[in-house]
Amino acid sequence: MTENKNQSGTPLSKIGEFKLIDHLTNQFKIKHKSTIKGIGDDCAVLDYSNKQTLITTDLLIEGIHFDLSYVPLKHLGYKAVMVNLSDVYSMNGDAKQITVSIAVSNRFPLEALEELYAGIKIACNAYNIDLIGGDTTSSTKGLLISITAIGEADDKDIVYRDGAKPNDLLVVTGDLGAAYLGLQVLEREKQVFQADPNAQPELENYTYLVQRQLRPESRKDIVKLLKDLKVKPTAMMDISDGLSSEILHICKQSKVGCNLFEDKIPLDPQVISTCEEFNMDSTTVALNGGEDYELLFTISQDDFPKIKANPNLTVIGHITDKKEGVNLITRANQKIEIIAQGWNALK
Amino acid sequence: MTENKNQSGTPLSKIGEFKLIDHLTNQFKIKHKSTIKGIGDDCAVLDYSNKQTLITTDLLIEGIHFDLSYVPLKHLGYKAVMVNLSDVYSMNGDAKQITVSIAVSNRFPLEALEELYAGIKIACNAYNIDLIGGDTTSSTKGLLISITAIGEADDKDIVYRDGAKPNDLLVVTGDLGAAYLGLQVLEREKQVFQADPNAQPELENYTYLVQRQLRPESRKDIVKLLKDLKVKPTAMMDISDGLSSEILHICKQSKVGCNLFEDKIPLDPQVISTCEEFNMDSTTVALNGGEDYELLFTISQDDFPKIKANPNLTVIGHITDKKEGVNLITRANQKIEIIAQGWNALK
Repeated sequence: MTENKNQSGTPLSKIGEFKLIDHLTNQFKIKHKSTIKGIGDDCAVLDYSNKQTLITTDLLIEGIHFDLSYVPLKHLGYKAVMVNLSDVYSMNGDAKQITVSIAVSNRFPLEALEELYAGIKIACNAYNIDLIGGDTTSSTKGLLISITAIGEADDKDIVYRDGAKPNDLLVVTGDLGAAYLGLQVLEREKQVFQADPNAQPELENYTYLVQRQLRPESRKDIVKLLKDLKVKPTAMMDISDGLSSEILHICKQSKVGCNLFEDKIPLDPQVISTCEEFNMDSTTVALNGGEDYELLFTISQDDFPKIKANPNLTVIGHITDKKEGVNLITRANQKIEIIAQGWNALK
Repeated sequence: MTENKNQSGTPLSKIGEFKLIDHLTNQFKIKHKSTIKGIGDDCAVLDYSNKQTLITTDLLIEGIHFDLSYVPLKHLGYKAVMVNLSDVYSMNGDAKQITVSIAVSNRFPLEALEELYAGIKIACNAYNIDLIGGDTTSSTKGLLISITAIGEADDKDIVYRDGAKPNDLLVVTGDLGAAYLGLQVLEREKQVFQADPNAQPELENYTYLVQRQLRPESRKDIVKLLKDLKVKPTAMMDISDGLSSEILHICKQSKVGCNLFEDKIPLDPQVISTCEEFNMDSTTVALNGGEDYELLFTISQDDFPKIKANPNLTVIGHITDKKEGVNLITRANQKIEIIAQGWNALK
């Protein structure tokens, strides 16, 4: 009877996700020695043994994170797992288990959930993951997926966001911007289809972009590669919200600045051609697009010889003193301050 | 573009939650030695050390699991934590951490979430729990809470659902049915309020019932008590869906039968008086009500002397051979087969 029904309070949209989490949780105190790392990184780290346990969780909601008019449920199941595993790999850890909770409205028949779980199963097999629990319930609207991933790592191998040092190199895996452009292509096709239900989707020029959007991979291979190369990053996270947002996280938590070089950002040829077609700036797309699930990390300059020949890894900048700020160095050699414009789940 | 839009498939409502989970997950194979127990109990058990890690997760959805017209958000936060911790205690384990993910529609101001997290914090302090992560996002409708709890236990202390043996005693903690009746009282008051917004809620005769519904406790104390008494149950689970449903789980997984004695079921005086007022059968309420978060367990008869004087524990029946079935022995000494009529989250 005492529910706060005050609708004139501070709207969440004004606060932003990260501040909201901080605001809501900063009075919680860590009480256990086994809690090595709580809120504030991609994973929580628990010391339950000689290995440390990694836990991460994500919510995916229909109408917010995905649109079932063009996302096949099997792909959605696969992607929902990738999103979570990516957070374990970004700690330099090895994902082992997931829990999957789903809520569905009564418009979903059993066969729809079978498709969803078929995608989850493919992901579990491909990445050697055990499904170990979850919850299933009805929803009053749409489909919701909540996944928790659990992994492990040796204490000495775990990489946090806060270890970047001035003069470290900033490295990214794969290429950026494709997942965002894939979403734009799918949204355009949806509108064409709505205008003319007999229209056939034209996706052949965008296969890589659509694949990156609908069926992304997480970079388990990079954790192994770094081990093989004997490189331990000084800081690392995955790129889910967009490169600019993630660089700002690393710089803030490491208390450093950064120079990011526009001409170094790795782009797939399909990203470049589609940006031209859509009249979009490819750098903006790479900086703010998100959902690429590549890894972003910093390494000591001493480790550069070990990585320089690797086609999976691109050096895109270097860490500076904090007072230098976080900057994009443009192709015209202009220095522009980087501000986060990535995905905001509370907009 | 390949989404299964077949609305004429098997409706979920016909399947039921447990069969659905089994149906969707029975082709997942356990791959890791560290996965001691996956789907099928209150918690998954992971061997990450000399201690074993317990993981459990629950989804709570507005309009399905709670009604904010009479559930204060602070109580909701507290209860959401209890629901999850209860699953850890029901493994005879010690809960240590939780992750909390929430999705909220834009009708919720910041102050509403503060209330919610205030309740979560009170629960974390009272039960010595670290909040270690989560996710926050917007929803297209209402409030949703997804919590994962993590705990630990010594291998030799963990109690599963499948260890009950013929002649074991069936024991329940506390009393049953109050949470369900609390819900009935609150629903009635809601209807009175809707008919006359100036009506004042009349709850003074139902304080215990309303408290059990809005602000339940989980039985951490019982795990300690059993340790102090040197009693290890042969099977255990918490009562979230209703006594009848939980007894059937234990009997099915342990491959045994059971005789439950109606006159032994512990009822609070307020439950008895309110059942009379509402013209409800108190045994039906205790069997099918759910949400009491008491523990239900079986012990060897040899352990009876250790528990018999304890006011927290009531022997309500005994385990039989499977062929005897699962029965309620009524006050009139009639034998009635028990069938589950508890909470079905997919109805």
